[in-house]
Amino acid sequence: MIYLTRHEHFNAAHKLYNPAWTKEKNEEMFGKCANENWHGHNFELIVTVKGEINPDTGYFINVKDLSKIIQEHIIEKLDHKNLNLDVPFLKGVMPTTENLAIAIWNELSKHLPKEAQLHSVKIYETPRICVEYFG
Amino acid sequence: MIYLTRHEHFNAAHKLYNPAWTKEKNEEMFGKCANENWHGHNFELIVTVKGEINPDTGYFINVKDLSKIIQEHIIEKLDHKNLNLDVPFLKGVMPTTENLAIAIWNELSKHLPKEAQLHSVKIYETPRICVEYFG
Amino acid sequence: MIYLTRHEHFNAAHKLYNPAWTKEKNEEMFGKCANENWHGHNFELIVTVKGEINPDTGYFINVKDLSKIIQEHIIEKLDHKNLNLDVPFLKGVMPTTENLAIAIWNELSKHLPKEAQLHSVKIYETPRICVEYFG
Amino acid sequence: MIYLTRHEHFNAAHKLYNPAWTKEKNEEMFGKCANENWHGHNFELIVTVKGEINPDTGYFINVKDLSKIIQEHIIEKLDHKNLNLDVPFLKGVMPTTENLAIAIWNELSKHLPKEAQLHSVKIYETPRICVEYFG
Amino acid sequence: MIYLTRHEHFNAAHKLYNPAWTKEKNEEMFGKCANENWHGHNFELIVTVKGEINPDTGYFINVKDLSKIIQEHIIEKLDHKNLNLDVPFLKGVMPTTENLAIAIWNELSKHLPKEAQLHSVKIYETPRICVEYFG
Amino acid sequence: MIYLTRHEHFNAAHKLYNPAWTKEKNEEMFGKCANENWHGHNFELIVTVKGEINPDTGYFINVKDLSKIIQEHIIEKLDHKNLNLDVPFLKGVMPTTENLAIAIWNELSKHLPKEAQLHSVKIYETPRICVEYFG
Repeated sequence: MIYLTRHEHFNAAHKLYNPAWTKEKNEEMFGKCANENWHGHNFELIVTVKGEINPDTGYFINVKDLSKIIQEHIIEKLDHKNLNLDVPFLKGVMPTTENLAIAIWNELSKHLPKEAQLHSVKIYETPRICVEYFG
Repeated sequence: MIYLTRHEHFNAAHKLYNPAWTKEKNEEMFGKCANENWHGHNFELIVTVKGEINPDTGYFINVKDLSKIIQEHIIEKLDHKNLNLDVPFLKGVMPTTENLAIAIWNELSKHLPKEAQLHSVKIYETPRICVEYFG
Repeated sequence: MIYLTRHEHFNAAHKLYNPAWTKEKNEEMFGKCANENWHGHNFELIVTVKGEINPDTGYFINVKDLSKIIQEHIIEKLDHKNLNLDVPFLKGVMPTTENLAIAIWNELSKHLPKEAQLHSVKIYETPRICVEYFG
Repeated sequence: MIYLTRHEHFNAAHKLYNPAWTKEKNEEMFGKCANENWHGHNFELIVTVKGEINPDTGYFINVKDLSKIIQEHIIEKLDHKNLNLDVPFLKGVMPTTENLAIAIWNELSKHLPKEAQLHSVKIYETPRICVEYFG
Repeated sequence: MIYLTRHEHFNAAHKLYNPAWTKEKNEEMFGKCANENWHGHNFELIVTVKGEINPDTGYFINVKDLSKIIQEHIIEKLDHKNLNLDVPFLKGVMPTTENLAIAIWNELSKHLPKEAQLHSVKIYETPRICVEYFG
Repeated sequence: MIYLTRHEHFNAAHKLYNPAWTKEKNEEMFGKCANENWHGHNFELIVTVKGEINPDTGYFINVKDLSKIIQEHIIEKLDHKNLNLDVPFLKGVMPTTENLAIAIWNELSKHLPKEAQLHSVKIYETPRICVEYFG
């Protein structure tokens, strides 16, 4: 069993705001992240898959194919978007990086070939904050 | 003459959209950056000042003081904000990274002590795109 | 279960020197790190906690709160200090990065709220050397 | 049990080409990596070992000794080499990064002292692609 | 006048070998870089252009257009290639990073629009070695 | 004319303390950097030289030779040292990064061959603070 990791990135806007709460409670809980006019990030997405090496090719999935799957099903839906408004697979989800990692895991695992098992989805929201989900 | 550089960072939302143009022309000119629902970045701000070393201290400005000036006059006004809507010194300015660098130069040069002359304002919009302005 | 990671940093001096040994044996064992006049590093501290997401907030601990806990209990005691002389929770400990990681684990785990379980303490001593401790 | 990680690097040429296949099939499977005139990378090699701390030294292996072992048995055989032609421990192996990680694991585990157990071999082929092997 | 910088990257093989010299002299002059079986790098290419901001767009060249020009005229000819054998604009040139920077400058300056003046071509051969050319 | 840059690094301890002042004034001027028990950094040293390319070699100085000169005359005297106590070329100098850059310039320019003219000495004290000197 060997682990292959691919880094991708996307830029997006979001805000953290629970509509069931007052503006004051949102600011107390989420601080500057509750700014009603949005803020944004360069998100770094790091996907790890695992599998058994095929002796004919020396790999279990071509990293270019892995990159295309992530681009088509994840990056194209997130890049230069508003995570609260524009993304079908985030509808009704508070777009914290934690929830984003879980939503990407759920979406991506539908589209990977059987020889590449999803191991983890890791997201850097800033260079000093990251979240990782193992399913 | 010696050059001192300080890195700061802020997260913000913006869009590139010229209200004098149609939606179609904006999309043609700015591509995904024209998304009406905004997108965002982790901006990295890199400020360089220059001066003559004071022999008593071994520096011309304490880097902590430089950092405080940048924090108070620039970062607090940009961090977790919408560059099109929330920033007094960007009112009426198309918030490209190019215009942002010039606006930061103009704002920052008002607040530096005379012994620290502003040399350049450099901004990374993503890890692969940056802009630099020398006044 | 989701994993949240926060990067912090501190600058400190130390030396590796076992007072039970001769100067020669210390130099043989620790090389340049035994320099009696000290040397130092920019240490990068990477703390990972894990927990269950609260559906109201989309997280299990606010990363700002996690950062404040690490700052107050760890960084303020280590930053711009001498690890052999100045740090109460390192008294009597050889300040290798290995021992530092364990001491930080022990100190930090006293101060985390119950919803954030400490998963790992990782320290880069230089960009090419790091140590990780899982308890 | 504590984990110590050392980063090393080497520059090498390779190509991905299965001699049992036609040129066309190689290009279909490996794309630009099948270029018969070779291409190359700055490989980043990240080795993690684990062990129990010796109270006299504060470590289980001196990181300088670990570095020397990796340099002597791995880096000197790979650096500025052709991975398809020049490396005894890669003879007959398709030099994908996946196979390279396994070969380095096998080679390195012969040369580590008993107090430092090999935990993982991780290789960045580019800053956005990496492979990890845990034995 | 404002400066815009774009980072691109390519992976390539090369060797440093002057055919007018003996093998011994080549090894004396170029060390491991003279390995006849080639070695390679992940080259990081950093292009800076300068111009006057257009008030309608807030930029002088769209960074996506700059990236396309570099991709089409430079990266497609260098990526996954052998710099000694495969690149028309390097024919007859010793492929040091120094000569590569000059050749890229000459090639790129033919293809830039008049509003974007080439300012510098910078290449990292490894993370610790770089070359810059200003024309 | 082409510019060649080499990154080197060293780890050292220092404190900022002017013996002509009281302890209180030192703490007021230098803050935590005045800690009498020292602190330290991983310093990153970035040296740029310039010259005319020799057509036989494709460079004006071999980067390995440049690295050896910096190692022998600068790094060996600074690495794992105390900048206030251990370094002959810093005797009597307040070891700020500003003064360190000037002292390295003066020392290094004595030892470079005539075909490699020193262009700049740049030092990162932390990843967010740097100083550059052009002579």
